[in-house]
Amino acid sequence: MQDVITIKIGGGKGVDLDRCTRDLAALHQAGRRFVLVHGGSHETNVLSERLGHPPTTITSPSGHTSRRTDRTTLEIFEMAYCGKVNKGIVEQLQSLGVNAVGLSGLDGRLWTGERKKAIRSVEDGRVRVIRDDLTGKVHTVNASLLHMLLDAGYTPVVTPPAISDEHEAINVDADRAAALTAGALESSCLMLLSNVAGLLRAFPDEDSLIRRVERGHAEAAQEFAEGRMKNKVLAACEALERGVERVVIGDARRERPIHDALEGVGTVFA
Amino acid sequence: MQDVITIKIGGGKGVDLDRCTRDLAALHQAGRRFVLVHGGSHETNVLSERLGHPPTTITSPSGHTSRRTDRTTLEIFEMAYCGKVNKGIVEQLQSLGVNAVGLSGLDGRLWTGERKKAIRSVEDGRVRVIRDDLTGKVHTVNASLLHMLLDAGYTPVVTPPAISDEHEAINVDADRAAALTAGALESSCLMLLSNVAGLLRAFPDEDSLIRRVERGHAEAAQEFAEGRMKNKVLAACEALERGVERVVIGDARRERPIHDALEGVGTVFA
Repeated sequence: MQDVITIKIGGGKGVDLDRCTRDLAALHQAGRRFVLVHGGSHETNVLSERLGHPPTTITSPSGHTSRRTDRTTLEIFEMAYCGKVNKGIVEQLQSLGVNAVGLSGLDGRLWTGERKKAIRSVEDGRVRVIRDDLTGKVHTVNASLLHMLLDAGYTPVVTPPAISDEHEAINVDADRAAALTAGALESSCLMLLSNVAGLLRAFPDEDSLIRRVERGHAEAAQEFAEGRMKNKVLAACEALERGVERVVIGDARRERPIHDALEGVGTVFA
Repeated sequence: MQDVITIKIGGGKGVDLDRCTRDLAALHQAGRRFVLVHGGSHETNVLSERLGHPPTTITSPSGHTSRRTDRTTLEIFEMAYCGKVNKGIVEQLQSLGVNAVGLSGLDGRLWTGERKKAIRSVEDGRVRVIRDDLTGKVHTVNASLLHMLLDAGYTPVVTPPAISDEHEAINVDADRAAALTAGALESSCLMLLSNVAGLLRAFPDEDSLIRRVERGHAEAAQEFAEGRMKNKVLAACEALERGVERVVIGDARRERPIHDALEGVGTVFA
């Protein structure tokens, strides 16, 4: 079975998707095979504002924040992630000679997950329980669908939402979904690319980049993670646990983000 | 090779997708296999208005009207068709036990078409040539991708846009794309379901429903078509030319729209 590299590209403000798709196309041309996972949080925020349903966050008692996803937000989320961003990437890849197929986690039950049935939210100092939030966590990846597409020469481009055990569309963290995907595909390498140099010992000083985290110290590296980096370190741990040899938290701002991450530029967990 | 029925469900205002998906699921359960093609024009109009980029139409010198599709409109179109509508249908089908996979015509170059490079538009009585419109017509269907999914037990749910020979996303007529799809899949039957009883001899009098059009008279039936029905009759002719045995222009408002169309309710071209 040919090795498949799983790449997650962030959907934060200012990520230059063009560089990533150009780089992917060059490496694809050279014989590498990929599954690309992407986000779309910035586009969702912009669209939510424009549609008069501005984004709101839930803060847990432990201080973790997440997007409040009611049904209206979920549909906006689908318009941004599955519509504009996914089809934009597929169009770019097609123009570069990569026969991309865009899928959400709903399609073919590619990502099945568990919906969080009760979320504790701190509002004005009081804890409230939210029961209708459409967020969750992927537990199963339909690797056979991805292998079938890869074997036929297609490059899957995958995006949230996932589908719950009760068949609802759910917002899931794309870094962690990518980690499970890399595990299910037996990828040698998972790359988590976004607008950061990698894991920093003294955030936000990029000179403090941690270049290597040994497998046995992956969880301990969490102490250096700030904000959204926490999910990336968690995703790195989950991928290693599932047999992925190497995870690179890399920099999507570079001229050749994927090539450089393959060369070990960023924070390498191995 | 098991027969595959190609169904197109319109995206006009008030089409009850729930009835169509429930009916499809019941027939799927009974062993029928489908490719579902859908539109999203009403959702696109609503979203365009809400985003401050209201829909506009192009009127040709011969009186044919079509959606003006600049790049901004195309992205709104993708959000509505590929995001909200496509993923909504996939979620519904999944909840009904149908393992649906949503795809646009871009994905795997499922629908390749030719972009109209110059469109003559009548504006204030004068003819202007528009060269940047992103509309076109499908000429090639990637049937092998659809067969691969069908053979693996998935139900493809396909939506515009298509991809041009120059790799641009293009707005295409979904009725006619469905006709080519039915031909490429060697479907025994193409159904074009929307909020009409069928082709009417005296529009809008539904008692004037034309129940049957013989193969040799399909083109002549165009004289009775009004508005969007013109494309449906054209699609019916194209499907018959490509070897489809039977085309039904049927009524999506019925309790069991697909079952009834299979029984010949509507206008049958054969």
